[in-house]
Amino acid sequence: MNAVTLLKKKRSGERLTKEELTFFINGFTKGEIPDYQMSAFLMAVYFKGMTAEETADLVNIMEYSGDVVDLSKLKLPKVDKHSTGGIGDKTTLILAPLLASCGIAYPTIAGRGLAHTGGTIDKFEAIPGFKCFLPLKRFEELVNTVGLAFIGQTAELCPADKKIYALRDVTATVESIPLIVASIMSKKLAEGIDAILFDVKTGSGAFMKTEKEAEELSKALVSTAKAAGKFATAMITDMSEPLGHAVGNANEVNECMAFLRQGPQDAPPEKRLYELTMELAVELYSLAEQQRGNKRPNKTAVKELLEEALKSGKAYSKFLEIVSLQGGDTNALDEGLPLASKIVPFIAEKKGFIGSMNGETIGMALVELGGGRRKTSDKIDHSVGFWFDKFVGDSVKKGEVIAQIYAKDAKTAEIARKMLESAIEITIEAPSKAKLIRKTI
Amino acid sequence: MNAVTLLKKKRSGERLTKEELTFFINGFTKGEIPDYQMSAFLMAVYFKGMTAEETADLVNIMEYSGDVVDLSKLKLPKVDKHSTGGIGDKTTLILAPLLASCGIAYPTIAGRGLAHTGGTIDKFEAIPGFKCFLPLKRFEELVNTVGLAFIGQTAELCPADKKIYALRDVTATVESIPLIVASIMSKKLAEGIDAILFDVKTGSGAFMKTEKEAEELSKALVSTAKAAGKFATAMITDMSEPLGHAVGNANEVNECMAFLRQGPQDAPPEKRLYELTMELAVELYSLAEQQRGNKRPNKTAVKELLEEALKSGKAYSKFLEIVSLQGGDTNALDEGLPLASKIVPFIAEKKGFIGSMNGETIGMALVELGGGRRKTSDKIDHSVGFWFDKFVGDSVKKGEVIAQIYAKDAKTAEIARKMLESAIEITIEAPSKAKLIRKTI
Repeated sequence: MNAVTLLKKKRSGERLTKEELTFFINGFTKGEIPDYQMSAFLMAVYFKGMTAEETADLVNIMEYSGDVVDLSKLKLPKVDKHSTGGIGDKTTLILAPLLASCGIAYPTIAGRGLAHTGGTIDKFEAIPGFKCFLPLKRFEELVNTVGLAFIGQTAELCPADKKIYALRDVTATVESIPLIVASIMSKKLAEGIDAILFDVKTGSGAFMKTEKEAEELSKALVSTAKAAGKFATAMITDMSEPLGHAVGNANEVNECMAFLRQGPQDAPPEKRLYELTMELAVELYSLAEQQRGNKRPNKTAVKELLEEALKSGKAYSKFLEIVSLQGGDTNALDEGLPLASKIVPFIAEKKGFIGSMNGETIGMALVELGGGRRKTSDKIDHSVGFWFDKFVGDSVKKGEVIAQIYAKDAKTAEIARKMLESAIEITIEAPSKAKLIRKTI
Repeated sequence: MNAVTLLKKKRSGERLTKEELTFFINGFTKGEIPDYQMSAFLMAVYFKGMTAEETADLVNIMEYSGDVVDLSKLKLPKVDKHSTGGIGDKTTLILAPLLASCGIAYPTIAGRGLAHTGGTIDKFEAIPGFKCFLPLKRFEELVNTVGLAFIGQTAELCPADKKIYALRDVTATVESIPLIVASIMSKKLAEGIDAILFDVKTGSGAFMKTEKEAEELSKALVSTAKAAGKFATAMITDMSEPLGHAVGNANEVNECMAFLRQGPQDAPPEKRLYELTMELAVELYSLAEQQRGNKRPNKTAVKELLEEALKSGKAYSKFLEIVSLQGGDTNALDEGLPLASKIVPFIAEKKGFIGSMNGETIGMALVELGGGRRKTSDKIDHSVGFWFDKFVGDSVKKGEVIAQIYAKDAKTAEIARKMLESAIEITIEAPSKAKLIRKTI
């Protein structure tokens, strides 16, 4: 077996055997197959795709390229949600403690944000003292005892994915369904979960701009997860405007706190954030029930049960418990994380309706504020961000505040304000509002 | 401008501007763009191709990536022939002195053989003392004064091609028409020629197995050469059996000597080798006439003139002159270069006709003898090879000699003999003989 022969096979659209894929992927991970052969392979896969069987093989090889989490001692069903990323997408911070407080384990190994999309690990790093990089053994312990934990991808976990992803990023081979599926699934399976829910975003703020692309990815993700013996659902959801009021790490954490706490001091959650989070939570609960061997439960009953976990404070306590165990300052969290001090309102220049909000531009405006990354090595400022008061379809008066900008100085605030101006369109007619949940697969 | 953006453009099938190609190719040559981005680019070109304009730009950028030969002081028309390579393909050694003896300059910068195909430089290195690696200035001097010279590709000539070719070889991106065209044309244009003849081989011993592929490549070569302001013709010629009796470097040089010398001690040239060489010579002469501003001459008249140059000994003297000036031992050449001493006949196991001869297998049998390369760094033995007495369509009796094997020992002779057995088919019915010159473009 040699790399050039396998490249020729893939180039001609022939399927590779598991043995051949193992030779190529493990050879690359060990440094025996050079970058330039892997990048030619990735480009060939971009053009020729992979069969369902090849994709499943690739997932399996990448999953076992390093250590895997062992949660076999834990008798609870173990679920996770994966979002393809968007603007203000913060549901993991709510879902994990909510499900864990209802007897469902929720191990999370998450990533950092890049370009216009945020990352869960960045949000946790906004909490003073919180440690995102724990050994896998400690992660297993926490999930076994508390039912949840949040860590970043360690060096031992899926090293093949880490190395391949870095190469895809610089060789224009990110946008390939089988490669996306392999990257997502290998990490999720290495987490030791039983069931998985994919939140596949579509719209201006999403990676998959069209619903067709989102559907193609959803189907590939669900079928690969099922082929690996997992319960799985994909929901195609709207990302044509920010999800919730807050964008920016500390700001988003504060919004999640208010959601979980539901205290007298807290404003009710933003409508779409609430609706999506509860839909995802109900689906995760149902997947867990299937894993227990039960039938899919009644949706209304599950929703009531989850709402009770929020109202009673169980979900909030669960969150504080894990934050505390991972070294985070729960007092700071309860008081609200501090935001950047230069606050500039973004106001409507004319009367009308919010016609559209370009998610990608809003995400890049956060990068300009210092709250996101251009390249993976960038440091970020957790305190900057936006708080949106208006969303698509809302009417605005001239001079009314659409959003607050939290910046470190006037200069970056002004850059961000200009970007919001180009991102947010005010129309005379009320626009049609995009459906939040487009499809369930 | 950045590499990933250009990769995305190429990946989507958009055409790149000359500025963009310059950025990419020169960046790679200088080491600023890494191998892995170039290999992704090459694979994208493999799938998406290049327009005629992009190919011409690529040729130009690669041509000027290093030094170019300056033959502007020489008033003679300057021609060259490029063969896509085959088994026993030795016409350059005859054409160059033949044309040069008729007042047409013939500068040759040639390559080494790899896998089943031979290389012109290897044949010259079979001549004791012959120096293939001269500075470009010396090459110019020789062509200016003698009308021909033979050198290998130096480090200063087309460094972009050298670096890109090495990468194509290990990333399964050799078989791409625009990349093949760019590699051939950049080197030929850097030679300082006015007109070029492409001998595009088709059949079992050729790189392009089918006539369709050969025609596609021929058209691309001719149109790119014309776009660069050169007179150009392509001939698609048969490579479904060895060209001439001899295969193996010293053996082939000896066959060329006999062809050029036409002495009483020399057997007449093999029919197809003679026919093809003369057709190529006539076409080169005609291209030179066009370069001089004349009409295409009468073919029969040109052929007579060329035959006279052979009979008179002018062509032979020209060859000895350049060999001597490049340090080669002309006595050794005239006496015949020594061949390997283990001579084993390959005999017909049954009565019938030579039905087919698999060129690729015969080429690989030469590699097994030590006369060809598996990888570019392999050393080769010039004395080994084959002498074919029979060709496709010839009748054979049981026990009759089809070829002689010249090996360094009995072991490699036996390996080669077994390979000839699988390469040469004996049929009951006489096969239809492939036409030697398939098409002229």
